[in-house]
Amino acid sequence: MTSTPLELFWIAGSPFAWKVMLTLEVKQIPYTPRLLQASQGEHKKPDFLALNPRGKVPALRDGDFVLYESIAIMQYVEAKHPARPMFGRAAYETAAIWRSISEFSCYLQPPLVRIYEPLLTGKSREKAADVLAAVPEVHGELDKLEKSLAEKVWLAGPGITAADTTAYPFLKVLLRASIKDEAARHFDHLGLLNLKDRYPRLAAWMERIEQLPGYERTYPPHWRT
Amino acid sequence: MTSTPLELFWIAGSPFAWKVMLTLEVKQIPYTPRLLQASQGEHKKPDFLALNPRGKVPALRDGDFVLYESIAIMQYVEAKHPARPMFGRAAYETAAIWRSISEFSCYLQPPLVRIYEPLLTGKSREKAADVLAAVPEVHGELDKLEKSLAEKVWLAGPGITAADTTAYPFLKVLLRASIKDEAARHFDHLGLLNLKDRYPRLAAWMERIEQLPGYERTYPPHWRT
Repeated sequence: MTSTPLELFWIAGSPFAWKVMLTLEVKQIPYTPRLLQASQGEHKKPDFLALNPRGKVPALRDGDFVLYESIAIMQYVEAKHPARPMFGRAAYETAAIWRSISEFSCYLQPPLVRIYEPLLTGKSREKAADVLAAVPEVHGELDKLEKSLAEKVWLAGPGITAADTTAYPFLKVLLRASIKDEAARHFDHLGLLNLKDRYPRLAAWMERIEQLPGYERTYPPHWRT
Repeated sequence: MTSTPLELFWIAGSPFAWKVMLTLEVKQIPYTPRLLQASQGEHKKPDFLALNPRGKVPALRDGDFVLYESIAIMQYVEAKHPARPMFGRAAYETAAIWRSISEFSCYLQPPLVRIYEPLLTGKSREKAADVLAAVPEVHGELDKLEKSLAEKVWLAGPGITAADTTAYPFLKVLLRASIKDEAARHFDHLGLLNLKDRYPRLAAWMERIEQLPGYERTYPPHWRT
């Protein structure tokens, strides 16, 4: 373990930062969260740009070592702290975890972002055609996830892995977007109003994530108010 | 090592398959290439859909074990054959490699695909606005890569890694698109006609890749004619 704890720079509700925090919680690695106020542009100020010139969260500081890009941070943490592995031990486990992460990143995350970004920034009317095109893509992939959960408790096998901590935050942000007024009025809640009815296993999987010790520390504070 | 060699299913010129083949070549892992004819839709026929229901290359068969998604295959191979590591040994090496891969995948690959896909499928005129929007994005990222190569020979340090084998095939396909008639006539060769003048270090890095033993085996056969 490090002598000084890791510092993780995050913005509340950023799924990219959230997946790293969930990973740290599951691995039980102590870290100091450094919350940036996006509304005040703290991620675009010189102090933070010195850590990540792209001005994006998450970023990690481990003593003198600085790192950005969520998956790079997750891999760094895994290499440094191999206990409670999130990327498998045997090659076939690693394969299943990465297949899940890659399928999520290639096929589900892009249409999902095309939906939640305009809804959460008040631009869903001007981008309505693109939002509407992305909705069936998302449901096609959610159907696949739902089916895959018939055979296992977590996305890539019997134990929680990086596949789970990667996917969950994006789905949670999507659900938050789905209850916005604009989503209700113009997009029928994205077809996600009754997640438990339409995707019961996926809903149960999300609940399992939400019961993890440490989950509350990763939850966006402003979502509670 | 496995008793029977790995089988890698590929389509000539697919950058997703190409990066896996380059990785196998650098790691000096024997494999049997299984070339699919995309023009005959072989990747959408039942035999191949049984390996990858998404109908995409690459796919790997290792005895009874089947795997798809390029990054999952690369991670599987790395876990099974740790010699000649492509994802680093020390945590800080792993971090640098993954930061490079992630930055490439998030910021360069998407605009690059938005350029080469329409150009290689004869749709660049109808998608001209999007192609034109993607060109400066690509050059912005190529500038960053060029600068980063001032300090090192390979993208993530002194030795070749998965960062290099991941990025190269996409850039090579982009260069091929840039010399198409449509690219010449309507997009000024994407500003890539004189790569050596504009990006000398990047051009030298590509030449280093092309001098790797085994490179020729990964080169699309139909590009020679």
